Amino acid sequence: MTSNASPPISRYPVPSIEALPDDLRQRILEVQEKSGFVPNVFLAFAHRPDEFRAFFAYHDAVMLRPSGLSKGEKEMIVVATSGANDCLYCVVAHGAILRIYAKDPRVADQVAVNYRKADITPRQKAMLAFALKVATRSQELDDGDFAALREHGFSDEDVWDVGAIAAFFALSNRMANMISMQPNDEFYLLGRVPRAS
Amino acid sequence: MTSNASPPISRYPVPSIEALPDDLRQRILEVQEKSGFVPNVFLAFAHRPDEFRAFFAYHDAVMLRPSGLSKGEKEMIVVATSGANDCLYCVVAHGAILRIYAKDPRVADQVAVNYRKADITPRQKAMLAFALKVATRSQELDDGDFAALREHGFSDEDVWDVGAIAAFFALSNRMANMISMQPNDEFYLLGRVPRAS
Amino acid sequence: MTSNASPPISRYPVPSIEALPDDLRQRILEVQEKSGFVPNVFLAFAHRPDEFRAFFAYHDAVMLRPSGLSKGEKEMIVVATSGANDCLYCVVAHGAILRIYAKDPRVADQVAVNYRKADITPRQKAMLAFALKVATRSQELDDGDFAALREHGFSDEDVWDVGAIAAFFALSNRMANMISMQPNDEFYLLGRVPRAS
Amino acid sequence: MTSNASPPISRYPVPSIEALPDDLRQRILEVQEKSGFVPNVFLAFAHRPDEFRAFFAYHDAVMLRPSGLSKGEKEMIVVATSGANDCLYCVVAHGAILRIYAKDPRVADQVAVNYRKADITPRQKAMLAFALKVATRSQELDDGDFAALREHGFSDEDVWDVGAIAAFFALSNRMANMISMQPNDEFYLLGRVPRAS
Amino acid sequence: MTSNASPPISRYPVPSIEALPDDLRQRILEVQEKSGFVPNVFLAFAHRPDEFRAFFAYHDAVMLRPSGLSKGEKEMIVVATSGANDCLYCVVAHGAILRIYAKDPRVADQVAVNYRKADITPRQKAMLAFALKVATRSQELDDGDFAALREHGFSDEDVWDVGAIAAFFALSNRMANMISMQPNDEFYLLGRVPRAS
Amino acid sequence: MTSNASPPISRYPVPSIEALPDDLRQRILEVQEKSGFVPNVFLAFAHRPDEFRAFFAYHDAVMLRPSGLSKGEKEMIVVATSGANDCLYCVVAHGAILRIYAKDPRVADQVAVNYRKADITPRQKAMLAFALKVATRSQELDDGDFAALREHGFSDEDVWDVGAIAAFFALSNRMANMISMQPNDEFYLLGRVPRAS
Repeated sequence: MTSNASPPISRYPVPSIEALPDDLRQRILEVQEKSGFVPNVFLAFAHRPDEFRAFFAYHDAVMLRPSGLSKGEKEMIVVATSGANDCLYCVVAHGAILRIYAKDPRVADQVAVNYRKADITPRQKAMLAFALKVATRSQELDDGDFAALREHGFSDEDVWDVGAIAAFFALSNRMANMISMQPNDEFYLLGRVPRAS
Repeated sequence: MTSNASPPISRYPVPSIEALPDDLRQRILEVQEKSGFVPNVFLAFAHRPDEFRAFFAYHDAVMLRPSGLSKGEKEMIVVATSGANDCLYCVVAHGAILRIYAKDPRVADQVAVNYRKADITPRQKAMLAFALKVATRSQELDDGDFAALREHGFSDEDVWDVGAIAAFFALSNRMANMISMQPNDEFYLLGRVPRAS
Repeated sequence: MTSNASPPISRYPVPSIEALPDDLRQRILEVQEKSGFVPNVFLAFAHRPDEFRAFFAYHDAVMLRPSGLSKGEKEMIVVATSGANDCLYCVVAHGAILRIYAKDPRVADQVAVNYRKADITPRQKAMLAFALKVATRSQELDDGDFAALREHGFSDEDVWDVGAIAAFFALSNRMANMISMQPNDEFYLLGRVPRAS
Repeated sequence: MTSNASPPISRYPVPSIEALPDDLRQRILEVQEKSGFVPNVFLAFAHRPDEFRAFFAYHDAVMLRPSGLSKGEKEMIVVATSGANDCLYCVVAHGAILRIYAKDPRVADQVAVNYRKADITPRQKAMLAFALKVATRSQELDDGDFAALREHGFSDEDVWDVGAIAAFFALSNRMANMISMQPNDEFYLLGRVPRAS
Repeated sequence: MTSNASPPISRYPVPSIEALPDDLRQRILEVQEKSGFVPNVFLAFAHRPDEFRAFFAYHDAVMLRPSGLSKGEKEMIVVATSGANDCLYCVVAHGAILRIYAKDPRVADQVAVNYRKADITPRQKAMLAFALKVATRSQELDDGDFAALREHGFSDEDVWDVGAIAAFFALSNRMANMISMQPNDEFYLLGRVPRAS
Repeated sequence: MTSNASPPISRYPVPSIEALPDDLRQRILEVQEKSGFVPNVFLAFAHRPDEFRAFFAYHDAVMLRPSGLSKGEKEMIVVATSGANDCLYCVVAHGAILRIYAKDPRVADQVAVNYRKADITPRQKAMLAFALKVATRSQELDDGDFAALREHGFSDEDVWDVGAIAAFFALSNRMANMISMQPNDEFYLLGRVPRAS
């Protein structure tokens, strides 16, 4: 049914790992060792080393920072806003990470399609409503939006986290859409099948 | 991370299979025997037997009719338009069916998120562009849309099939969204793992 | 000012009544006897007998079912949602039926253009607000929408009726738009002039 | 089915004809003599005499000016753009005028709902496409839009007429929507029934 | 960086002031004496003297009328709604007038881009929210919108002023967009630099 | 007319320059020396040093990189996409920078409101059309969009620059909107008045 050859992972040239600056190669080898494969976003962004460095520094700043949001909740934001932006790479890749963190094989598909129907808590639904407003009509954000999150126990710093993740993936989704970045085949299945059971 | 109890499969009461009219029970037992489980759409629609009968009669009329579209292509239309309508049940359930027909574990997620980035043929992309126009702005359809499909070898009857499937799932998506229909857990994984290889 | 020849009633071939399967011909003759003419939707859908049967079975299941909605209120839903979908056939044909049921020559035009300005009850305006949400952004439906209708005295089954009618005409509008179905000339005037009383 | 008392013709006070400045009363008596009734727009705008004068001066400047557009074509623009703006008063009142000028009982409903399905000429469809772009996304107008009308034989002055009518009714529709202006009952039926029968 | 020759002030012919009817020439000379230059809107509309007269009569009726709105508040409405309609002429020309009336070099840019972030009063923000609803979705206006303005002390006549200004500039913005009207160079700087320093 | 006290430059706490990590303080002092003041974006982002570092690293990577785009053209992209996102800070601050680079006091207002009416080259208009598609509907980008830029002489690397700038300011606009970042007063006037006069 589908075409024979896989599409390229990016519209732009993808450098070989050997040819990369040391710090990029180092980071890529680390993620490969940890994950068992190199997510295509590392290879696609390696076409522009300075943007690679800034991109992953930003990613780490918002995604790894200690927060009132759990790691899974941060990935929910990524998946929900990437769904709103129709970004294939981010929905599939971060959907996998969300399934793993949440230990739930269903939540990523739910959040990507319609968080209102997802099997998540009211607090998480409020968080995603705020994130989607940042993603799609940030100009309309007002005090009421902050108050709604405070009612669910989010601190002001937590709210910044919610918005900053949505804002960072507004960048990421647009780059992936522009360069037609393809998710690795591995991501489609990761976290769907119970491990050692 | 997620709540303990699964949400109900519908906002409305779900009758027991035993209490159903004979023809509904018969159809449900047949699908159970064939699939190994009863897709929730059968149970949720059983709340209204006359609508159940008409719904599945319509489904069969457009989905089982011999056509220039393959079974997999018909399911692509379902998944792409259900994605545009943010319908969780249809994306997940028909995503599973699409993976099985297409023998491809990736195509459903691709088509649900953004068919333009999917690993499908130009003919299939033209088909989905037409289907999405039926789904989201059918008032603007004109001769040019029909001509575009004819250029890809679709007959006029094939085009009716494309549009009729998109139109039927416009109904289906709205009902599922209104009653908060939940996909069976089985659908999330079906067709993702190679069978006995 | 306008072109001389009327446009065809459908982009697709329209079978002669004589050539139809018995059950279709029977239904068409009945409606002709009752109405004095054959609404074009019967002829246009007769191109596909299986879809004809399912379409009218669905129509009857949602439109003829005993309900807390009056016949006129059901037609209001049809006209308002068909107006939102810019569906010429359904606005004109069901506008006529609405005028007859409501014994009001103005209500159909009001509801088709803007139900907020129509001379109808607050309960009917709430009903149409729900129906239009089903028609245009069903993914956002939530508990608040159901609560709003309950405050106006609608039962849960009544709400299903509202949504199911809006969902069925989401299908109907898209088919009519795709095949450029034309309303019969009779519909434009029906119910506008007081009978002989 | 509908409420007993008719809604007021405007949210704002409507002055008695006797209390009006002479020029307003004169104009109103003239239209009453010509039409047999006073269209509500004259009464509603009489609340603000200076705006009344400017409104009808503008109306006359764009609607009565000799033009490459026929009187019926000008009214088509009014009806189509008022339909896009969901303006009940203008769709119903100018729909009546269009039916009379066009001597066609069907064209107003067609153009109000979806001009693409109306029984009008390709030239008229191009004219309405331009008018609707002025009405709904004038910021995107470019040379291509002007070229498209020139290909159908419209002069530059004709194009100004098309745009100016759409622009004037952008004002008119917004005022009518704001003050909830109601069309006179007479308009609903005017031009629908052949005269001499 | 930019092209050498300035673009024409209108797509349409601009008459010489000498060739104009007396009343138009008179008005233009007055504004020139008062402002030190002739705003291009006077020249562009002079192409159609009847529309010129009606346009400025309407402008004066809504902008010069004594009102509960200050002159600066009226200009805020012009700038905010013209921003929503992406109208270059009106944002730049009325932005200048707003700066002068408000004696504030920043408010026009703030209101043109996003009134929610502007350094204005809550009463003014409520006024602009109403004006923008008139400008962009007037069909949805309802009692709640009027109540919101009354809570901020606006009388019913003040609300008419708000809506009428938004409605008039709906016309003005569309004409300016259609004819590609260019603001005079003077407007870009007016009101930005403190006078007597 | 406006409130007395200026609004804070951010919803979030703004650290004193003395309390900042050395590298942040260093960068801020450098920009102060160069510009004569500290743009508020530096102070607002200093609330989160890691995000500050990544933000400005990304900014420099896309804005300072040698490119087929001039410095002024890069700022045009910032201003046009920030206008589409209704971001007050970025329109005003980068509008100033654009005026300075372009030595043109009008271009920033033109591009912020409607680039189609701006006094720029066809090549620049094509560039902004691509940038705005990245900003507002990146999921629809396809080969045709790349081909359109190539026809105007943009290399593939230039196109990446266009898209990467639009994508980075998608992030920046959302952060500024979320934290209600205010532009410095200086930006409103910069580049509007000829220097040596």
